[in-house]
Amino acid sequence: MAEKLMKAAVKEKPAFGSTSIKKIPIPKPLPDEVLMRTRISSICGTDVHIYDWDDWSRKRIKTPLIQGHEFAGEVEAIGSNVTHFKKGDYISAEGHIACGYCYQCRSGNAHVCNTVSILGIDRPGAFAEYMTIPEKNVIKNEDDLPLEYATIQDPLGNAVYTVDSGDVVGKRIAVFGLGPIGLMAVAIAKHIGASKVYAVGRKNQFRMDLAKKLGADMVLRSGEDPVTKILADTSGEGVHESLEFSGNQEAFVQAVKATMPAGGIHILGIYPGPLTFEINDMVTKGLKMYGIHGRRMFQTWQRMGGLLKSGLNLKPILTHRFKLDDYVEAMEVMRSGNCGKVAFPME
Amino acid sequence: MAEKLMKAAVKEKPAFGSTSIKKIPIPKPLPDEVLMRTRISSICGTDVHIYDWDDWSRKRIKTPLIQGHEFAGEVEAIGSNVTHFKKGDYISAEGHIACGYCYQCRSGNAHVCNTVSILGIDRPGAFAEYMTIPEKNVIKNEDDLPLEYATIQDPLGNAVYTVDSGDVVGKRIAVFGLGPIGLMAVAIAKHIGASKVYAVGRKNQFRMDLAKKLGADMVLRSGEDPVTKILADTSGEGVHESLEFSGNQEAFVQAVKATMPAGGIHILGIYPGPLTFEINDMVTKGLKMYGIHGRRMFQTWQRMGGLLKSGLNLKPILTHRFKLDDYVEAMEVMRSGNCGKVAFPME
Amino acid sequence: MAEKLMKAAVKEKPAFGSTSIKKIPIPKPLPDEVLMRTRISSICGTDVHIYDWDDWSRKRIKTPLIQGHEFAGEVEAIGSNVTHFKKGDYISAEGHIACGYCYQCRSGNAHVCNTVSILGIDRPGAFAEYMTIPEKNVIKNEDDLPLEYATIQDPLGNAVYTVDSGDVVGKRIAVFGLGPIGLMAVAIAKHIGASKVYAVGRKNQFRMDLAKKLGADMVLRSGEDPVTKILADTSGEGVHESLEFSGNQEAFVQAVKATMPAGGIHILGIYPGPLTFEINDMVTKGLKMYGIHGRRMFQTWQRMGGLLKSGLNLKPILTHRFKLDDYVEAMEVMRSGNCGKVAFPME
Amino acid sequence: MAEKLMKAAVKEKPAFGSTSIKKIPIPKPLPDEVLMRTRISSICGTDVHIYDWDDWSRKRIKTPLIQGHEFAGEVEAIGSNVTHFKKGDYISAEGHIACGYCYQCRSGNAHVCNTVSILGIDRPGAFAEYMTIPEKNVIKNEDDLPLEYATIQDPLGNAVYTVDSGDVVGKRIAVFGLGPIGLMAVAIAKHIGASKVYAVGRKNQFRMDLAKKLGADMVLRSGEDPVTKILADTSGEGVHESLEFSGNQEAFVQAVKATMPAGGIHILGIYPGPLTFEINDMVTKGLKMYGIHGRRMFQTWQRMGGLLKSGLNLKPILTHRFKLDDYVEAMEVMRSGNCGKVAFPME
Repeated sequence: MAEKLMKAAVKEKPAFGSTSIKKIPIPKPLPDEVLMRTRISSICGTDVHIYDWDDWSRKRIKTPLIQGHEFAGEVEAIGSNVTHFKKGDYISAEGHIACGYCYQCRSGNAHVCNTVSILGIDRPGAFAEYMTIPEKNVIKNEDDLPLEYATIQDPLGNAVYTVDSGDVVGKRIAVFGLGPIGLMAVAIAKHIGASKVYAVGRKNQFRMDLAKKLGADMVLRSGEDPVTKILADTSGEGVHESLEFSGNQEAFVQAVKATMPAGGIHILGIYPGPLTFEINDMVTKGLKMYGIHGRRMFQTWQRMGGLLKSGLNLKPILTHRFKLDDYVEAMEVMRSGNCGKVAFPME
Repeated sequence: MAEKLMKAAVKEKPAFGSTSIKKIPIPKPLPDEVLMRTRISSICGTDVHIYDWDDWSRKRIKTPLIQGHEFAGEVEAIGSNVTHFKKGDYISAEGHIACGYCYQCRSGNAHVCNTVSILGIDRPGAFAEYMTIPEKNVIKNEDDLPLEYATIQDPLGNAVYTVDSGDVVGKRIAVFGLGPIGLMAVAIAKHIGASKVYAVGRKNQFRMDLAKKLGADMVLRSGEDPVTKILADTSGEGVHESLEFSGNQEAFVQAVKATMPAGGIHILGIYPGPLTFEINDMVTKGLKMYGIHGRRMFQTWQRMGGLLKSGLNLKPILTHRFKLDDYVEAMEVMRSGNCGKVAFPME
Repeated sequence: MAEKLMKAAVKEKPAFGSTSIKKIPIPKPLPDEVLMRTRISSICGTDVHIYDWDDWSRKRIKTPLIQGHEFAGEVEAIGSNVTHFKKGDYISAEGHIACGYCYQCRSGNAHVCNTVSILGIDRPGAFAEYMTIPEKNVIKNEDDLPLEYATIQDPLGNAVYTVDSGDVVGKRIAVFGLGPIGLMAVAIAKHIGASKVYAVGRKNQFRMDLAKKLGADMVLRSGEDPVTKILADTSGEGVHESLEFSGNQEAFVQAVKATMPAGGIHILGIYPGPLTFEINDMVTKGLKMYGIHGRRMFQTWQRMGGLLKSGLNLKPILTHRFKLDDYVEAMEVMRSGNCGKVAFPME
Repeated sequence: MAEKLMKAAVKEKPAFGSTSIKKIPIPKPLPDEVLMRTRISSICGTDVHIYDWDDWSRKRIKTPLIQGHEFAGEVEAIGSNVTHFKKGDYISAEGHIACGYCYQCRSGNAHVCNTVSILGIDRPGAFAEYMTIPEKNVIKNEDDLPLEYATIQDPLGNAVYTVDSGDVVGKRIAVFGLGPIGLMAVAIAKHIGASKVYAVGRKNQFRMDLAKKLGADMVLRSGEDPVTKILADTSGEGVHESLEFSGNQEAFVQAVKATMPAGGIHILGIYPGPLTFEINDMVTKGLKMYGIHGRRMFQTWQRMGGLLKSGLNLKPILTHRFKLDDYVEAMEVMRSGNCGKVAFPME
């Protein structure tokens, strides 16, 4: 009998772009995997890096590859050992596949597992009609969760984890970096009762406007001395916590200066190289800094599920929808920066 | 020169009621005190106990006494050592005067100081046109904080501390006991993104209606098996955290049953006597319990200030206003239970 | 070919005792299991309850059963999916088999998993020459860990988790209940720099003497007003933390009275029925209470491994060794209470 | 009547050295101060900076000044408002005088008060027969605390706070920087059950030998690739926590590399200028960093008191004793680095 085929966006060669929409066989789940029919997927900044074939991609990625680690879908079939999910379940998944046995995994820190592999990076992802996922990574979504929220839980999880790492309720928060994850953090911080949120962008007016729509009390530009403005607005005290999503040295230095003694700086941003800063400022102010990587498995997903249930409004972030056939066009929108999240609804 | 007089509600004898509105001398601040002109005050449940002259009052209170530990006002004069406040400042105050030197005070736990004395309980309070307050207890209010919010910061602080003790953001919360503090906790939990709030009252329909107005997702009666209803509504899982304000054994037992393994129970309620419960439920579920007393000095005030700034809506709780001359009538409204907070605006 | 046989202590019928040493087939590991050759095992209090066939056993245990959840041994064979252990590895194991998917398991609280099953309770245990263990529960021991320490890691884990739940370094600690786990807690608390350890026993002089040997600064009897003695010895302040292993109401009440405001009570004890106490003492002192169940997976094992490496001395606790053939005699020593840990070395 | 005189070491001019032993009037305590008769004092590295008149001193210090913020003594007299101490009390004191009213002070972070002034830096210190101290800063020592331990509680508090900031019990710890505070941290970490302590010095053999005496399991030199040695000794895992006392960029970078994912780096060191490091290592490993400044008021003092009571052995650190008259000689020993703590016993 003929093998069943599916549509997939396949990056074929180790070069810029080089991605075609093709018909390829639907994968079969291993005993510990589920097969998901993709109902929606969305594009991460990392997907653009791979599309662009930057330095990091050259070292990490092997072609051909189906990208895509933001998604939601329906269980189509299950492997022989799978017991916690069944055909028809509405699911998403944690993209980091942790080993489960290293020191980190066994101490509740699987998000920094020594030997992680990632869906859509190290194995086929969600820019296809079907994909396989290890059972232990699958998340059952609430039935009433809109598809467009379900698909962005991977980056939303980054934002939730970063906010969760801080002490935000009733506090003044500065968010540096207004990409989609930074924007989500603005929305979350406002949603859970931050007393004031300062959103600091660089140049992208589209995203600074989005920050305003998502509730930022004050939107500032990193090039226009945001520290002085924040201090002036806070009787010279500064913010209680800074969330750093920009990966930009200038923003990092501003975060150190804008944050009150005994406060925290929570860093998800990835930087182009080594960073230089006045560490004595950090020491004598008794600041704390937290490197944030991925999402806690699965405490972040649980917190995120509750926040979505509580009415967290992210609609302004969902700016573009494309057919999978228009993959290149979608990537170009992402590359322009004039967008929030860009999704591929599949049905 | 004639001494200046002020109006005050003075409980004169160790008996039920026995409170008159009198003209008495305006007190003079000691070197470390400020003199506050009262702009508003409000009635705590404890004030009703003292008015009623219950057992606790008999042991603790010495008459004559001016009650009142919920208030806001303006600095009228300062003692010779006072340096952090000045005439005209808009203030409230922490009512617990801690020693500053015992183990608790020196470990950041002044709220459980060994030798605390309390404004309006152990020394003259705010049911008067003026009162003196130790400088170290004074809180400067934000200029734009409405008087009716400023006056309830003492009980609101109880609620903030209780909620703060739990893990509430994005979580399912049960609130047991719908007096004013429990109602405030309902409002706070919703405000900071609880995924669902179950409010459990006993008989008072007025307050159950208030809980609904303040955002409770489900309002239940402790006599009508709320545990089964909560479990049914949560796929049998229960709530992540319970907040116990009722001081009622039945509610406490329900909290233990309704709370998920590894969850917490945060107890502000004061009980009529010893309590009996299935402690093995607590141990095998790995529950945590937290006795909550007063407010953290001054972390709770800081959190509360931020929450008020972030737009916490408590309007439905502010149900009654009286002139100080109508003190007895105000106490009767409190005794009926058909009220939220009852205040004495003074201007 | 003839099936290979092993020696095992088999509880055969649902009645007191009823345990014979028999030759039965060596079990075969399932794909996700390892087969361990038992090098040593030891007796838990729970094993005595099962031997005695008490109420709890009647409800939980199905005969025939090989008991035993404290052990160490060597991997003899591995199932087809096992990848993290190999023949010859020196191992022990966490006895609680958690589901991995419930809310608790996915929030780092697998020790209170909703559907746990336990080695030697719900499936065959270690009082036999061989046993099978799910790979995910296996712990690799340090090569230089003595067998007699390796076998007691299950109860030692209880003690480590209880101590770890408190704030013990440089603090005054009261330990209530001087069974083997309480005794281990005394040793751990002293080892990590508790300023003073009060050990409170009931009647068993043997174990009170052991507490002294393990470093307790003061050994008290619960029937002889230990609270007054602790308060007298601490300028009336009391202890910072209490660890409750006794499951005795009197001890619990003493813990509440002996613990300082803002302190903690950490409860591993299982009680014969509901417990009654002055909850207002807990509330007004701002005490915290923690139900402790099992061991954190696997943070407790990691902490324990480090403590054993750091030189934690538990030798006085290891009082008796028996051959497996002398099972009944070993159980009788356990029932007498005149012992610390009782072990079955197998080689 | 003639004013009473005392001996004091007075730095007279803004220049190197320039310190004479003089007879000057005994100070009188203000109403909120105690007058202490100094029984012992000791020299901090900061005192050497002032003696040397380095850049920092030029900006901060006003001469004439009596230095000295490490000390113990006896209350000689009390101001009119002092109520918690009396003549004859055996005391030391926290050297940082916090305002008590800023955001930090009111949130339990007085150690990073906005307007701190420091004994022996901003007002007269302990290198004299008498000194005055604000009552709120005074600590009552245990009667049996040896003078030579009592005097070093300021730096010991730095070490205790740094260790306390980490998760040390049963963990592998790297200590970078083997000045007196780093050495104390080595001793504390071993005392509370660290599984292994790696002590990393630079050049000073005297202090590396002291680290060994204080229990360090492995003593390494920062110039001889300690990271490779630590990784080799830990199966490639690294240490759980690093404590950075050196203020040296090379050591900081090594700490980042030697620390396990999800671990912490606790930084007391003060650096000569901005620091450069691979921040992505910190982010992707999910490391936490903590700036440590001063000592928690007074939680660190309470922890320290308990640790001293529990038998913390610091004898090897106390290497030199001088008469106050031999002040210059004592400073020269400090400047040589061939010493632990250097003290001035006064009786």
